[in-house]
This record gives sequence, structure tokens and C-alpha cells, in this order.
Amino acid sequence: MGIVVQKYGGSSVADAAGIKRVAQRIVNTKKAGHQVVVVVSAMGDTTDELIDLANEVSPLPPARELDMLLTAGERISMAVLAMAIHDLGHEARSFTGSQAGVITDAAHGKAKIIDVTPGRIEAAIGEGAIAIVAGFQGVSQTTKDITTLGRGGSDTTAVALAVALKADVCEIYSDVDGIFTADPRIEPRARKVPRISYEETLEMAAQGAKILHLRCVEYARRYDMPIHVRSSFSDKEGTWVVKAEDVVQEGSMEAAIITGVAHDRSQAKITVVGVPDKPGEAAAIFRAVAEAQINIDMIVQNVSAAATSLTDISFTLPAGEGQTAMTALSRLQESVGFEALLYDDSVGKVSIVGAGMSSSPGISARFFEALSEAGVNIEMISTSEIRVSVVVAETQVQAAVNAAHAAFDLGSDEIEAVVYGGTGR
Amino acid sequence: MGIVVQKYGGSSVADAAGIKRVAQRIVNTKKAGHQVVVVVSAMGDTTDELIDLANEVSPLPPARELDMLLTAGERISMAVLAMAIHDLGHEARSFTGSQAGVITDAAHGKAKIIDVTPGRIEAAIGEGAIAIVAGFQGVSQTTKDITTLGRGGSDTTAVALAVALKADVCEIYSDVDGIFTADPRIEPRARKVPRISYEETLEMAAQGAKILHLRCVEYARRYDMPIHVRSSFSDKEGTWVVKAEDVVQEGSMEAAIITGVAHDRSQAKITVVGVPDKPGEAAAIFRAVAEAQINIDMIVQNVSAAATSLTDISFTLPAGEGQTAMTALSRLQESVGFEALLYDDSVGKVSIVGAGMSSSPGISARFFEALSEAGVNIEMISTSEIRVSVVVAETQVQAAVNAAHAAFDLGSDEIEAVVYGGTGR
Repeated sequence: MGIVVQKYGGSSVADAAGIKRVAQRIVNTKKAGHQVVVVVSAMGDTTDELIDLANEVSPLPPARELDMLLTAGERISMAVLAMAIHDLGHEARSFTGSQAGVITDAAHGKAKIIDVTPGRIEAAIGEGAIAIVAGFQGVSQTTKDITTLGRGGSDTTAVALAVALKADVCEIYSDVDGIFTADPRIEPRARKVPRISYEETLEMAAQGAKILHLRCVEYARRYDMPIHVRSSFSDKEGTWVVKAEDVVQEGSMEAAIITGVAHDRSQAKITVVGVPDKPGEAAAIFRAVAEAQINIDMIVQNVSAAATSLTDISFTLPAGEGQTAMTALSRLQESVGFEALLYDDSVGKVSIVGAGMSSSPGISARFFEALSEAGVNIEMISTSEIRVSVVVAETQVQAAVNAAHAAFDLGSDEIEAVVYGGTGR
Repeated sequence: MGIVVQKYGGSSVADAAGIKRVAQRIVNTKKAGHQVVVVVSAMGDTTDELIDLANEVSPLPPARELDMLLTAGERISMAVLAMAIHDLGHEARSFTGSQAGVITDAAHGKAKIIDVTPGRIEAAIGEGAIAIVAGFQGVSQTTKDITTLGRGGSDTTAVALAVALKADVCEIYSDVDGIFTADPRIEPRARKVPRISYEETLEMAAQGAKILHLRCVEYARRYDMPIHVRSSFSDKEGTWVVKAEDVVQEGSMEAAIITGVAHDRSQAKITVVGVPDKPGEAAAIFRAVAEAQINIDMIVQNVSAAATSLTDISFTLPAGEGQTAMTALSRLQESVGFEALLYDDSVGKVSIVGAGMSSSPGISARFFEALSEAGVNIEMISTSEIRVSVVVAETQVQAAVNAAHAAFDLGSDEIEAVVYGGTGR
């Protein structure tokens, strides 16, 4: 009898009806002979409502108190979920992050898990109860204060608990059926991927696919914990995220060349025009951006025009950080001596990801040809071992995704009906 | 520099504006040179809303999970209050009941405080911070589960913390200015009492005055912790609840004969008619009621009518328990052989309370004469050393209160403008 850890996001437990539905699913898993540990997010919009309340009394609430406040959200959902399970005739006990042994550092709002000591969870499931654990939260090892894990926190809680409990699998439930070859909202022929490697999932997520948070996939990869991504609204198999060897064993003895197409509309592009082409100039620019805590994604430096000895440097960054970056760079104009700054947030990034890419030459060429045939203009390019990304005009993102999807035969013949959305926190 | 413990009820922190107002009051206390520990209830109707949510998924939610759920209420109010204090430039740290060291037994929903170990609170105020503590909640010594203290829980938390911290005073804030000689809503001449003994307060509360919960007054009496009952909406002195000797020292060297008039409309009266007047019959009746977990208040047995050897037994009980008691007694009709059961929930109880009563003969007579002159018919009478209570028709409660208030010269010449309400949980 193995242990199954299930994580349900806020959209799955948005109201009493959702909670009852999830409770029935949990009971079914228990009846199937598993020991069940459930990690739950706050109900629906609870977190946003609590943040609004905080902002009513303080424009910049202290992080310790914000964590104390936000953790009330999971406290509510987990207790009500435990009640709903009781109502179905099964014993369930809810535990806060602290009670579940989720030990973190003291970085409020973005705490890192240091250790997981789930003694009370083991005791509860050992006595035949279903354990319900608050996601997203822990307790600081040093200060004993309540902490939250930040974005992707509940997914990370689930994987960390699954690892600590030596679970068979960590099931991550949302309102999406699994991981798709592309976002079904813009690619109607998108197909659910049955198995995908940790590495490919990381690339897909990093390139904008709203599937799993990077952090929980990294945690799962480090400890080789299989993740089953599935919908809480159906009983269909979802997508298994496993180590690369296990993807290969499945099916045709070879990994798919391309697993999926990811896109990201949240980026902006900054171009520094007319930078003197001498050592140290680019370094000064990126040091300024780094000091402003901006996360840069892709960087392209044009070949210097010999006549002028000037060059252009372009990079992409999250659009939300554009203003800060522009301000930081403007201060450098005189010392670096560049001519102008250009800002463009009407860009998008489209990426193809696949573990088989490294052993299949010509992938980039086929990708670029497909884009060209679709009339898509490439503004920037970057690659990794298992990924090729391009920056295009935002208006051309959909055409680029469709072209890439078709070029690598990713589509299914039937169009699957899916609801596609975020994964909660 | 002494420690002041302040408790704010749900009506004082019902919204962001209320929380900011309370934060300012707390900061003022801190600026006056005190170390401040604040106990706070859940905001406004939060607790009722959480109970409604629980009932949406389960008609009879398990007590452990209900406690987990309800404690989210104070978690929200205390964190937001701490933020509001930060916003005024002072450091505040919030603590759950568990973090504050409120150790209880494992009786969920009505846990009793076993110990208070406020090491983290002492550390926080020692470092100059204001400590905010969640009222109403604790942690079980044996199971380590989260518990709630039941009715009056936040007041009890405040007094228990004040005792453990050796505070100078425990201030209990609500929307009422203090303890009055009668309910100002039905006695416009009611006067705020400046000082009252623990014992008188207990009698007033037990007889229906909605001032402080019995439990917190008993705790304060046991450890001689002065309570200052006051309004969070004004800066006026409220009522000091202190030991009897300290009431006497104040003013005229003698305790007032009558301190106040309490009334209670929540009672019902059951009369068992035609009980055979032989040993064991009354015992059988009251054993049945006790086994149904009914709390009986007053009991009157009429003198047996010699011709029939039958007697009538009347008692009062909370109206909410009337149905249960009637059902339990009906089952006894054959074995005991009584003639009929009468139920009357149109009754009220009016009580005069005063520590000076025991040394002043004729108090009962003056009370009964006043009622008689006001045309009030007495249905039942009971007395204690510092109290005389009568049961009257509910329609005559107001007339009885007014008559008693006038007969013992309790009124002030000016009518105070007060808002009178409950004290929250």
C-alpha cells in the first residue's frame, strides 16, 4: 500500500461544491488502497482578498505579518476539506505547514524549504486517516515565525512532502488535463503529452508554458519524484513528469525530437542603440540592470558597424520590470556614451523544446523555415541543448506557434476539449 | 514601566477603519510608557461566516477541524492589526495562541487553559515591540492540536496572559462604556459603575447582564488581576473590576448595598403538575433533566395540598434547552405518575446584586414592595448571599427593572448616552 500525495490548487477548491468534489476524489483514492496525503491551496480568490485587506491598512505591510495573514487562506481550505471528507465517512486531519514539519529559512514571502520532518503526517496516515496539509507555508528554523514559500509554493510543498514520505507519486491537480504540446487556446490541435522529462518540463515552464512551477519541478528532478499533472474535473490520465530515461522507455524507444511549443507574451525588449564598441561597455550596462534586480532573459549584440565602431545591444526581460530597467539604464547614458534606449513591450517569445533535439541536426533550420513560410519575422534567437527560442512581434505569436506545431507534427487528429488555465500558487 | 494587556472584541476591529483606530489607541498606550500586549478577536462577523462555510460541506463538522477553521479568524485580524501598527511607525509582532504559549486540554470547542508559557511574548515586548495575540485559541498539551476556548474565550485569553505576564491591568475593550447599574436600553437612568467586585460582576453576568463572561471574571478573581472594562470608541474611564476590599476603600468606606439590576429574557419555565408527594419523585425528575445535559437555574416546589398528596414542581432553564427537557420529562410521566407538564417561555428574570446586601436586612422586602407597587407579579424567587432574583412575566421585565433601579437609588440625574451591546467572543 503506497503513499500518494495529491495537490489541489485554488481553482479546484474555489467553493463548497468544489471542495465536496475534491473530497470525493480523495476518498476514492483512499478506497483504492492508497495512503493519501493532500496538499491544498487557499480557496479561489482568498489570497487576493487578504492582500487587499492588508493594503487597506498599510501600503507596504511587513513581510512577517503578511505571511501570518496569507497562511489563514490554506488554514480555511484545509479545515473545510477535512470536514467534507469526514462527511463522506472517512477520517481526515488537517495540518498547518508548521505541524507538517515544513521547515524553512526566514525569508518571508519567498522562504526556501530547509528540511521536512513529517512525523505527524506519518502518524496520521499510519492510523488510517487522510492527512490534509496546508500548501505554500512553513515555519522558520531560526525565528520559529510562520513563513510562505512564494510563487509555486503549494506545488513545492507537495513535492517536498512526497519526497520526505517516500511517496509513489505526487499528483498535481488543476483545471488543466495535463501538459500539452502547445497552449490549446491558441493551437486547437494541441495534444496532451503522456510522459515528459523533468528537463523538458523545466524548459517549457521557463519559456512561458503555464504548467508547473520551475521550483517544484527542480525539486522533483533532484529527488527523482514522479509528478502526475492532471485535472480535478475528470478521471483521465494526465501527464507524467519523470526522468528522461523513463520517457524513452515508453513508446518507440526514442525520445520525441520535439515535445512541445511554449510561448510567452509577458516579455519586453530593450535595445541600447549606439554603444561604443570597446571592452567594458556591455559589462557596465548589464551591471546596472543586475543592480536593479532585473531578470534578463535573452541578449543579442549586433556586429559592430566598422565605420562607426558603434554596436547595438538588445535584451528581453519581464515587461513588469521594464520601467525600472529603463530608469537604471538612463542614468548610464552619459558615462557609457550610448545614443538611445528603445523599449518594446509588443513582443513575444516562442520556443520549441525537446530532449531529442541534441541528437537531431537541422531542427533550428526546420523551425526557422516554418516561421518564414508563415511570414513571421524573427527579431532575436537563443538556444539551449534542448530548446530553440525566438522573439517575434506579439501579433505574430499565434502564427509562430501554429507553424512550429505543424512543422514538427505535434498535432493530434482530433481536437481535445480542454480548459486551460493557471496552476494557482 | 508596567505591562498592560488590552483585549479588543470583534466589533472594535470589524473593518479596516476600526483596525486603524484600535492601532492608534494601542500606539498611544505604548507612547505613554507601557509595555503593551494586545489580545484580539476575529473581525466582525468572520466567525459566523466561517461556521456557515463549514455547514455548507458538513452538517456536523468534526470539532478538531472546526477549531482549525475558526482560528483562521483571529489569524487574519491580528496580522492586519500588526500591519496597521507598523504603519504608524511602531513595531508589532503577531502570535497565534500556540505561539503565545496558551496551553489547553484537548476539549475542542471548549478547551480549558492548563498553562500559559508566554516566553515569545516576553521576548517581543522586552525588545520594545508590541505583541498581538490571537484570542480564543490555544494548543492542546497532549495532542498538539489547535483548540478553541469557547464562549468568552478571548476575554479569558487576555486575563490569563495578564496573569502570566504579571501585568498591571487587563483592559477589556468593546463598544460599551463599562458596567452599568442596569441595561441602559431599558433603564435610561442607568449609571456607569466606577468600581465593582469580582463577586458582584459574576452575579450580574450569571443573571443575564451582558458584560463580561463568567469564565474570565472567575480567572481574574482567582489570581486577583484587575480588569478595566471600557469602550474602544472613547477615552473615558470605564469600570474597574477588582477585589471586594478595593471597592470598599473607594468612596464612602462602605460597599454600595445594591450595585446593579440584571435581567435575563432567555429563560423558560417548566412546571411539573401533580407530582405524588413521596420520597424519590423529585429526584427522578431532576435526574432525567440532568441526564439530558440541561442546565437548571431556579427550582420551586409548592407545599403539598394535603387532600391530594400531590405537589407541583417548577424550574427555570435556558429557553433553547426547553424542547429537550420536555421530551426527557415526558418519558417519565408513567413511572413518576405526575399529571401534566406546562411550558412557558414568556418569562424573564430580574435580579438585584450587591455585596452590601448581606449586612443590610430588609433588602428583599424593599425589592418585593417596589415590584408590587409597580404591579409586577412574582412567579418564583431565589436568593444568594449577594443577590435576590425573581421570575416574572416577560412583559413585566422592564417595569420590574425600572422599579428596582428606582427603589435602590441607583440612577444618575443625567442620562448617559451609551451604546450597549455584546462583548463578542
